[in-house]
Amino acid sequence: MPVTRSHPLFIVHTGAMRGKSTAAFGLALRAWAAGLPVGVYQFVKSGKWRPGEEAALLALGRVHAETGEGASVTWHTLGQGWLTPGSHHATPTPACDPAPASDTSTKVNNHRMAAVAGWRAVQRDLAAAHHGCLVLDELTYPIAWGWLDAGEVIETIRSRPGFQHVIVTGRDADQRLIEAADLVVEMTKVKHPFDTGRRGQRGIEW
Amino acid sequence: MPVTRSHPLFIVHTGAMRGKSTAAFGLALRAWAAGLPVGVYQFVKSGKWRPGEEAALLALGRVHAETGEGASVTWHTLGQGWLTPGSHHATPTPACDPAPASDTSTKVNNHRMAAVAGWRAVQRDLAAAHHGCLVLDELTYPIAWGWLDAGEVIETIRSRPGFQHVIVTGRDADQRLIEAADLVVEMTKVKHPFDTGRRGQRGIEW
Repeated sequence: MPVTRSHPLFIVHTGAMRGKSTAAFGLALRAWAAGLPVGVYQFVKSGKWRPGEEAALLALGRVHAETGEGASVTWHTLGQGWLTPGSHHATPTPACDPAPASDTSTKVNNHRMAAVAGWRAVQRDLAAAHHGCLVLDELTYPIAWGWLDAGEVIETIRSRPGFQHVIVTGRDADQRLIEAADLVVEMTKVKHPFDTGRRGQRGIEW
Repeated sequence: MPVTRSHPLFIVHTGAMRGKSTAAFGLALRAWAAGLPVGVYQFVKSGKWRPGEEAALLALGRVHAETGEGASVTWHTLGQGWLTPGSHHATPTPACDPAPASDTSTKVNNHRMAAVAGWRAVQRDLAAAHHGCLVLDELTYPIAWGWLDAGEVIETIRSRPGFQHVIVTGRDADQRLIEAADLVVEMTKVKHPFDTGRRGQRGIEW
C-alpha cells in the first residue's frame, strides 16, 4: 500500500479551512487498508465534533477483529466539551496569552489536565509503537495555549521507534512543528459563499 | 450527523497538493456514518491510485449490508491506467491544448470514451438520486482536456434532485466550477522537503 512505502512520516495539516481533520481521517482509511493499526487522539472536544468519523473508523476496527482484514482502530477522546476551536469564530487567541482568558475556571483546568494526560498516553503509545498511523487531532491548540511544550512534542515524535506515521492537525501550527514535519499541507478557503448567513451551521458541517 | 444538515452541498477540492481526494474520502466516511449512500467515480486511473481507500470504503459497505449500520458504498473505476495526473510531474497541460498531445493514440481515445461513459453514468445516478454523497474523483482533468463540457457538468450538478452531496476533486478546477460550487477548498503545499530526491515516491504515497 502506498502509505507503507518509504519511511514513517510526520505530517501536519494546518490552515484556516476545515478539511484538516477530514483529510487526516482519509489517510487513516488508507493506513487501515494497508494493515497499519490506527490510533486517534482527539485533543479538543466540542459539542458536535466527529461522531461520524469515529463511528466509521470503529466499524472498520470491528471488521478487522471479525475478519482479519485491515487493522485495529482505537479512538481516544479528550477535553471537556466546552471549546470549539475548529469553528469559524470561537477560537481563543493563543499568541498573546498562553491560555484562554478564563484560565481560572475549572473547565479550563480540567481541559488542560485532560490534554496533558492525553499527551502522556500518546508518548507511551509512541514508545511502545502501538500504531502504524497515529492521528493527533487538534494537537496544535494545547501547544498554542502553552499546555504542552512544542519542543517536547517534536522530540517525542522525532525519536519514535518502529514504523509509525504521525499526523497532527489544527490551525496555527507552531513554526517549530512545521520545521520538524516531513510534510505540511495547508487547507485554504477559496470560496465559502454562505459565510455570512450560515457560518455557525456551516462550520459545524464542514 | 453534521453532513446531513442544511442543503446538499457541491464541494470542490482543488490545489497543487495531494490531499484533495483524501479529504473527499474522509468526508465520505462521515456521510457513511450519517446513513448517506456513498458513490465514488474515479475519473483517472493511474497504475497506483487508491486501492486503500477503495478497500476501506467497500468494507464499510459490507458492514452496512451485514448489520444495517451506515450506508451502502459503490465504487466505479474509469480510465485506462496510463495517466497519472495526480503525480507531481506528469500532468498534461490542459490550458493550451484541449487534450493530451498524443491525442491520436488508442489509449487516449479509450480513456476519453471511458470518461464520457462514466460521466453519463454519473448523470443517470444523479437523476435517480442513488447516493447521498457522490465523490467525482479527478473530474477536473477530463473537463480540462475538453472531454467533458464544464457547463453541462455544472448544470447537471445544479439541477440534481433530492439530497445529494457532490464532491469534485482535482487540480486546476475550471473557474466555472469554482463559481458554481458551494464550497471550495484548496490544498496548498507548505513544506515538502524531499521534493527533489523522492518526488516520485512521495507523490505516489501522498
